[in-house]
Amino acid sequence: MIASLIFGSIFGVAAGFVVGKEGPMVHTGSCIANLLGQGASGVAAAFRAPVGGVLFALEEVASWWRSALLWRVFFTTAVVAVVLRSLIEFCQSGKCGLFGQGGLIMFDVNSATPRYSTTDLLVIILLGILGGAFGSLYNYFVDKVLRTYSIINERGPGSKILLVASISLLTSCCFYGLPWFARCIPCPVGLEEDCPTIGRSGNYKSFQCPPGHYNDLASLLLNTNDDVIRNLLSSGDEEFHLSTLLVCFVAVYCLGIITYGIAIPSGLFIPVILAGASYGRLIGTLLGSFLDLDAGLFALLGAASFLGGTMRMTVSICVILLELTNNLLMLPLIMLVLLISKTVADCFNKGVYDQIVKMKGLPYMEAHPEPYMKHLAASDVVSGPLITFSGVEKVGNIIHALKLTKHNGFPVIDEPPFSDAAELSGSGKGLKLEDLDIKEEEMESYVDLHPITNTSPYTVVETMSLAKAAVLFRELGLRHLCVVPKTPGRPPVVGILTRHDFVPEHILGLYPHINRHK
Amino acid sequence: MIASLIFGSIFGVAAGFVVGKEGPMVHTGSCIANLLGQGASGVAAAFRAPVGGVLFALEEVASWWRSALLWRVFFTTAVVAVVLRSLIEFCQSGKCGLFGQGGLIMFDVNSATPRYSTTDLLVIILLGILGGAFGSLYNYFVDKVLRTYSIINERGPGSKILLVASISLLTSCCFYGLPWFARCIPCPVGLEEDCPTIGRSGNYKSFQCPPGHYNDLASLLLNTNDDVIRNLLSSGDEEFHLSTLLVCFVAVYCLGIITYGIAIPSGLFIPVILAGASYGRLIGTLLGSFLDLDAGLFALLGAASFLGGTMRMTVSICVILLELTNNLLMLPLIMLVLLISKTVADCFNKGVYDQIVKMKGLPYMEAHPEPYMKHLAASDVVSGPLITFSGVEKVGNIIHALKLTKHNGFPVIDEPPFSDAAELSGSGKGLKLEDLDIKEEEMESYVDLHPITNTSPYTVVETMSLAKAAVLFRELGLRHLCVVPKTPGRPPVVGILTRHDFVPEHILGLYPHINRHK
Repeated sequence: MIASLIFGSIFGVAAGFVVGKEGPMVHTGSCIANLLGQGASGVAAAFRAPVGGVLFALEEVASWWRSALLWRVFFTTAVVAVVLRSLIEFCQSGKCGLFGQGGLIMFDVNSATPRYSTTDLLVIILLGILGGAFGSLYNYFVDKVLRTYSIINERGPGSKILLVASISLLTSCCFYGLPWFARCIPCPVGLEEDCPTIGRSGNYKSFQCPPGHYNDLASLLLNTNDDVIRNLLSSGDEEFHLSTLLVCFVAVYCLGIITYGIAIPSGLFIPVILAGASYGRLIGTLLGSFLDLDAGLFALLGAASFLGGTMRMTVSICVILLELTNNLLMLPLIMLVLLISKTVADCFNKGVYDQIVKMKGLPYMEAHPEPYMKHLAASDVVSGPLITFSGVEKVGNIIHALKLTKHNGFPVIDEPPFSDAAELSGSGKGLKLEDLDIKEEEMESYVDLHPITNTSPYTVVETMSLAKAAVLFRELGLRHLCVVPKTPGRPPVVGILTRHDFVPEHILGLYPHINRHK
Repeated sequence: MIASLIFGSIFGVAAGFVVGKEGPMVHTGSCIANLLGQGASGVAAAFRAPVGGVLFALEEVASWWRSALLWRVFFTTAVVAVVLRSLIEFCQSGKCGLFGQGGLIMFDVNSATPRYSTTDLLVIILLGILGGAFGSLYNYFVDKVLRTYSIINERGPGSKILLVASISLLTSCCFYGLPWFARCIPCPVGLEEDCPTIGRSGNYKSFQCPPGHYNDLASLLLNTNDDVIRNLLSSGDEEFHLSTLLVCFVAVYCLGIITYGIAIPSGLFIPVILAGASYGRLIGTLLGSFLDLDAGLFALLGAASFLGGTMRMTVSICVILLELTNNLLMLPLIMLVLLISKTVADCFNKGVYDQIVKMKGLPYMEAHPEPYMKHLAASDVVSGPLITFSGVEKVGNIIHALKLTKHNGFPVIDEPPFSDAAELSGSGKGLKLEDLDIKEEEMESYVDLHPITNTSPYTVVETMSLAKAAVLFRELGLRHLCVVPKTPGRPPVVGILTRHDFVPEHILGLYPHINRHK
């Protein structure tokens, strides 16, 4: 999985390069196209789900979307799909170790026809509700754990390594220790597969068991992630004991929470799918005697409910699960479970990616402005003092302003009677201020800023509600927004709004008595 | 197909109602959500492709997109999927005629494993290029034919009926006459199906043939659309003669072009899939001896190439084809063909839906502003004279203005020194001017407009390039955009831009010497 994720990223970068290059796009656009291309092709390669990758990028990553992006991201994942298919073909003879197993569809393991009664439907609805609750609980704990880890990680490389080592040790103890308590099960007769398993990868691990027997917990814990998912999704009600599934669920759920955020490249997708599948299979096996639907299909629905409860995506999870399992007939049920679990989880907290973005302090703007923003005007949040330049400005002043501030956009205002208001916007990349070698006499000279000013920037009037200004800022993907006065006769720019000015923490810091939810 | 399309629309409206109702959305938003919901659920029901329906709505219908819409449209199609599945279950015993045939996956008819060599790949690339060319040619002819028909249809109901009657007669003559020229083929041995076919629906029509023989052209022409597609996609290289496929392709291609636009509810999707599948199968059978890939899979790729060439969508066609055929392993090839055919066809003309929207004179705004808009300022296209109201205005003046113009937004400007600029915007729905009964003395009275004005409308400065103003207008989904002066001391609104002012025909009418492509 990790190998193919790396593959994905490499292709993502390569293909993102092609994607980002085309035509006269603005800086923001090509940057987003690049990022989307990388994200999409990463998912496309890791899960062998090219269309799901496109949708994942659109649903989760993009805060700003254009139909042209869809076409470019699709191109990126098409490249990934074709390359991946060739590599899988090449690797099928076992030249590349475990990479390439399972063909283009990774988990095409359950061919049971989904037939279900009303009882099944009720159980599935319950599964969705519980899955949503577990998912939001997962998010809650991940958030708490991440906050603790960030304190530990800040203490230096020593603490980081110690943390990783202790989590690894704990994981090893759990995964190696727990199977000792499981009972040995006699191998089923008439299997195509070897039982017990020979070699690293397989479904019937012998562990401590005598010949002709297997340890079902070892099959779930001491196995590659891919094989565990395959085991859980495969058909048949008898393969795993209830206690085994319960132990597996609890172990994977808890370890997943405490592993994310330590200094190794671990993900969220696979642990969530694993926990969800064992939860679903647990429910399916528990109520097996009342149900028509196969336990393996319940595992799939459980994975969907957990993904819906943590990630809060709908269309892309649907397509990714479809591309992973090739079980199109399950689509209506998967859609149902996703809707339920997302709705339930949304009552408690936000999606896990939103949480992480917020915790890292990135100024992410929500799709909808917060309710209280309607009661504030744009001028209420601009942070002063406003630094402006004249059309022809002294070099020393510019250097001073750049040293004083962290942003790169300043209003350029010609002398009174204020005939011209404009915005000077640097690219913010490339040259650093420290790299410039400016002599003392140069500091006293003047530079004409007119050629590099934007003479018709997007503006809002100071009395516009902050909510409306936020919509403008976000939909147009701006970096600076000039606030202009309502009445004439004053300087033509009241202030500049940047992304940070729209962040709830900043606003609530300025107006602590505001009601957040109204 | 039509029955399920009607079903789809009904559910679409019902579900769209749920979708459009939620929360404090603006008028435009709920309207779009409704439309998207209907479009998506129509596709979802007609093709039994719920996820494809969501994507179709997003890729083709939406000119303005928010992530909240995705979730709502997904809900709509989930309802459709669940209802549809129950209906199919209910209908499987033959209670509903031909509706419900084929289960949830309509064309799951080809289980051949897609294996292909380099030769296949070259042929597939050629197929994509030719398919793109045929697709854009289809669009060209559809456009010409629609223009002719709109002249005929305007002459009155008599002409409309005559047109429909003659096209029906021509179609009947073709579909009934052509099979007489086809040779009879002996039935293959060892079939599960009846040969020749008994009843309406089946793959081996006997037509004029002796017992134990079938007429392959009749199987393609005298059959339901669903069965024809099933026949074309099914595996096996020997079922149809080359000449049969050629005749079928030419007939379906030409009849498809002349049928769209007459006064019956005919579509574009199915004729294009039919023509594309027969074209693909023709190529597959023609070069069959050099190829590894099955002729039925070539038919699928041919359908993809035609869809890409006419509709110019990528992700949604991909998912719809996947949901129609359940052949996930074909995904990389379908993506490849779609990319090629779309790219080729884009060199010649626009997508068929874009053409139709443009021909109907709807003011559709492109995702990208036209290149020449960069060289025009916002004030260059505002059409005068500007009608403004005072804050407290005489009723007679308002009635006069509403009679004179077709739009419902006017700037409201308080008396000099121009302390206030605002935009009055009616909802444009509900009451009509003629329905109002206003007496003569009321015309002379005054009304205070302040309570119904928007005091901080989105504005652009008159010198802003038209391209930038167009981006603002489109991304925010506006109906009116105020243009304000650059220099103080003039009236605070220079003009108002509406959707019509951004339409290329309007701009090129004002500036005929402008270079369209520069």
